[in-house]
Amino acid sequence: MQVACYFSSGSCGNVLIWPADGSHWLNIKTLLEELIRRNHSVTVLASSETLLIKSSTAAFVHFEEVPVSFTKSNIDEMIEHMIALWLDHRPTPLSMWTFYKELGKLFETFYQININLCDGVLNNTTLMAKLQNCGFNVLIADPTTTCGDLVALKLGIPFMYTLRYSPAFTVERHCGKIPAPVSYVPAALSELTDQMSFGERVKNTLSYYLQDYIFQSYWGRWNSYYSRVLGRPTTLCETMGKAEIWLMRTYWDFEFPRPYLPNFEFVGGLHCKPAKPLPKEMEEFVQSSGEHGIVVFSLGSMVKNLTEEKACLIASALAQIPQKVLWRYKGKIPATLGSNTRLFDWIPQNDLLGHPKTRAFITHGGTNGIYEAIYHGIPMVGLPMFADQPDNIAHMKAKGAAVEVNMNTMESVDLLNALRTVINDPSYKENAMRLSRIHHDQPVKPLDRAVFWVEFVMRHKGAKHLRVAAHDLSWFQYHSLDVIGFLLACVASAIFLVAKSCLFVFQKFVKTGKKKKRD
Amino acid sequence: MQVACYFSSGSCGNVLIWPADGSHWLNIKTLLEELIRRNHSVTVLASSETLLIKSSTAAFVHFEEVPVSFTKSNIDEMIEHMIALWLDHRPTPLSMWTFYKELGKLFETFYQININLCDGVLNNTTLMAKLQNCGFNVLIADPTTTCGDLVALKLGIPFMYTLRYSPAFTVERHCGKIPAPVSYVPAALSELTDQMSFGERVKNTLSYYLQDYIFQSYWGRWNSYYSRVLGRPTTLCETMGKAEIWLMRTYWDFEFPRPYLPNFEFVGGLHCKPAKPLPKEMEEFVQSSGEHGIVVFSLGSMVKNLTEEKACLIASALAQIPQKVLWRYKGKIPATLGSNTRLFDWIPQNDLLGHPKTRAFITHGGTNGIYEAIYHGIPMVGLPMFADQPDNIAHMKAKGAAVEVNMNTMESVDLLNALRTVINDPSYKENAMRLSRIHHDQPVKPLDRAVFWVEFVMRHKGAKHLRVAAHDLSWFQYHSLDVIGFLLACVASAIFLVAKSCLFVFQKFVKTGKKKKRD
Repeated sequence: MQVACYFSSGSCGNVLIWPADGSHWLNIKTLLEELIRRNHSVTVLASSETLLIKSSTAAFVHFEEVPVSFTKSNIDEMIEHMIALWLDHRPTPLSMWTFYKELGKLFETFYQININLCDGVLNNTTLMAKLQNCGFNVLIADPTTTCGDLVALKLGIPFMYTLRYSPAFTVERHCGKIPAPVSYVPAALSELTDQMSFGERVKNTLSYYLQDYIFQSYWGRWNSYYSRVLGRPTTLCETMGKAEIWLMRTYWDFEFPRPYLPNFEFVGGLHCKPAKPLPKEMEEFVQSSGEHGIVVFSLGSMVKNLTEEKACLIASALAQIPQKVLWRYKGKIPATLGSNTRLFDWIPQNDLLGHPKTRAFITHGGTNGIYEAIYHGIPMVGLPMFADQPDNIAHMKAKGAAVEVNMNTMESVDLLNALRTVINDPSYKENAMRLSRIHHDQPVKPLDRAVFWVEFVMRHKGAKHLRVAAHDLSWFQYHSLDVIGFLLACVASAIFLVAKSCLFVFQKFVKTGKKKKRD
Repeated sequence: MQVACYFSSGSCGNVLIWPADGSHWLNIKTLLEELIRRNHSVTVLASSETLLIKSSTAAFVHFEEVPVSFTKSNIDEMIEHMIALWLDHRPTPLSMWTFYKELGKLFETFYQININLCDGVLNNTTLMAKLQNCGFNVLIADPTTTCGDLVALKLGIPFMYTLRYSPAFTVERHCGKIPAPVSYVPAALSELTDQMSFGERVKNTLSYYLQDYIFQSYWGRWNSYYSRVLGRPTTLCETMGKAEIWLMRTYWDFEFPRPYLPNFEFVGGLHCKPAKPLPKEMEEFVQSSGEHGIVVFSLGSMVKNLTEEKACLIASALAQIPQKVLWRYKGKIPATLGSNTRLFDWIPQNDLLGHPKTRAFITHGGTNGIYEAIYHGIPMVGLPMFADQPDNIAHMKAKGAAVEVNMNTMESVDLLNALRTVINDPSYKENAMRLSRIHHDQPVKPLDRAVFWVEFVMRHKGAKHLRVAAHDLSWFQYHSLDVIGFLLACVASAIFLVAKSCLFVFQKFVKTGKKKKRD
């Protein structure tokens, strides 16, 4: 069947995108825009029931819609569930088991939505034929949404990932074969740092094991799906291991240094860019702050409103600082709102963080926002809520560029003190500037590196020379259990033989001695 | 004491070099030339008794001479010892123990020469004061020659390494904290690849253990030296772990992909460059080869002559191919030399390998030469002799770009067949070209990356953000032995408590039952 495809004849390469929604999309969007700027054709493959993808796609890229049976409200419910999970069971040592059990339940909902999308593509022969006909050179998938790899394999094209991380690095470790020594690599989501006490190392070890256990049961179901689609016994993990390149959305300004592999490229902050001038009215408000400067406040794209009580509590803290505050907030105007605080439906966050008058950033701790703060060297007050946010803020705290305030238990004074600390204690600004210098001082900018590897995979039809041979080993071979067993058996045999020989010689001499004595 | 220093006032940075001799020097020299081109001052600190360093330094860089009591002939003897070691005990599974024992002896000689150099610097207060006064920004050391790190610490400046590798990656693993899973990372010097059979994995595991054992005893002596110089209990390895950056002289065109850390930068082939035109007479000889092209033959800078018999055997093989041969050879002209073969005291190797008429490269397998062949996409015949050469050729064989001939046992026909294979079987040229494409297709050229990190360390006075926290852990903490012990103790206690409780309940019920029965 011959159908139209969206590869314009003048383009260099033809890229298919399998995105994840929400803030993930905001990050990958920058990569797509750059690919288009460099004259590649880009097609996004996603369901119509997306939060941000479809609405912000049409303007610049071809959107290939996948018919699904779930609705946007199902996704919203899942996000509510996720926020509630973190609010109720933030992983302390005592609540770890409950947390990971609840996370398992969340995966169940996620699985149902995800598999619906997979079926929507893979069982749709018209759509698959259309995609086949388009001659894509590479598929870029965010593996948070499963099946991108499967689509690439069915189309016979190389694929690569863009990923923030998986809980406890389960996917990177098991499928990507990245080593993560549990003694100094804090499990993602654990809120630990690379400097751990004995107790923290115990917690970290348990986080890895528990997360592995949850994922194993989650994987089990995907394994049969993947085997059915590919028509041979396989696993999700084996398939994911075929990714040519893993574009990781962090770097060593944000992440604690840890081992990685040649096909992992750390491109954190690829979406950051210099600040543009602010809208006139906003600039006037900012300038009116005088020498005190401003504070930028946003809880990100996923959380719309706060309870009225919480909003009042926050507003009253903000009212007490000499800085002017720009707060992205859609809810009811809090009664305690100070004259120094102005509410906005939306703010040009990057441009504000890059403004010379900005003194601090109050953030929920999303990766994108934190990277913008790092880029511009702005200290942070973290109000983390769910997913990677508590972990992200823990990183910034450890690096001395942020103070955390607990959203659940905070009083007005906590937020006020935190703000005063990051604004008045010069170490926070210095540390934020240090991270900024690290971020800016790389041989190649993150976005250019990401695009380089996309183009590399297109040029060479893969990047097999970067793929470790660990992928060809079973788990017991990988851990050398067979070799260790064999060497132990050798040692045991040697000891046995020597002992037997000694016994034999001893008995012979004793007998000879006795015999001689008798003679 | 105020003494003259060699930092010219217009320079950007002031770099001190602690080099290793021989081919190591030829590699690092390229880096120095580039640093000078970028307006940095460079001072080389080495003994006057060097093979290549002093003679090739004076022209372009300041040479700071260290008085020592050994002579050039001591170094020559050590190299002869090294060649003999490989010729006699090339590490087969059966001779591994002997090989590593002999390698230990070689380390002993090396230790004597090296410590003489260390004393020559560190005990020389005039020299140290002079160096102190020069305000160096960074020291770049080849850790093959020990003590560079110590000099840097005494001068209070950051240091970085340039390294090909250490046997079985002992230094990289123990001091650099790089993980190397024994199941797929072949031990350097083992001549294994990343695809290993069970027997090979056993050999690999033993190579790691034996090498660790040898190094432990070698380190023991350095540990006390380092503790004495620094005036506190320390180890060689702990000191080496303070290196800001490790510039590794390989890349994934040459090396099998394996785990590494953020402060390891793989800059293999940084010395490679496009070919320059050949001298007129040589170009005429090359052109006279017609469509058959030429073969380039060199056994490197360390081996001067062959036995007359071996040279005749080689010459007679060369005489039988239709190609013209350019052979770098200083010995007596072999009786069997064909009219197609011309001998040279020295050849412009890189320019010849980059010549369009070149069909093959006969090489001893030094890293520098192999990289020039990769750069220009030339298939190889390997005649490896010692050190990393057999391993290097094993890599090129595994990647399908070389055939190996055993220098000890070869007949004329072996070399002839090998040459015919790499020239006439197109797969060798294709594979060499594939490696070449990988080499050329990097986001930043190796030399530029190396210079970037030298300048980075100077700009930021180090690169601490790339240093893993593993350096702060003891070996049992690193391997989580304390955590595993604790968790096992917890499990054992739990089992004990449950068993005790069951026993208690059981006894109580049994007793109650019996009592009731009696009543």
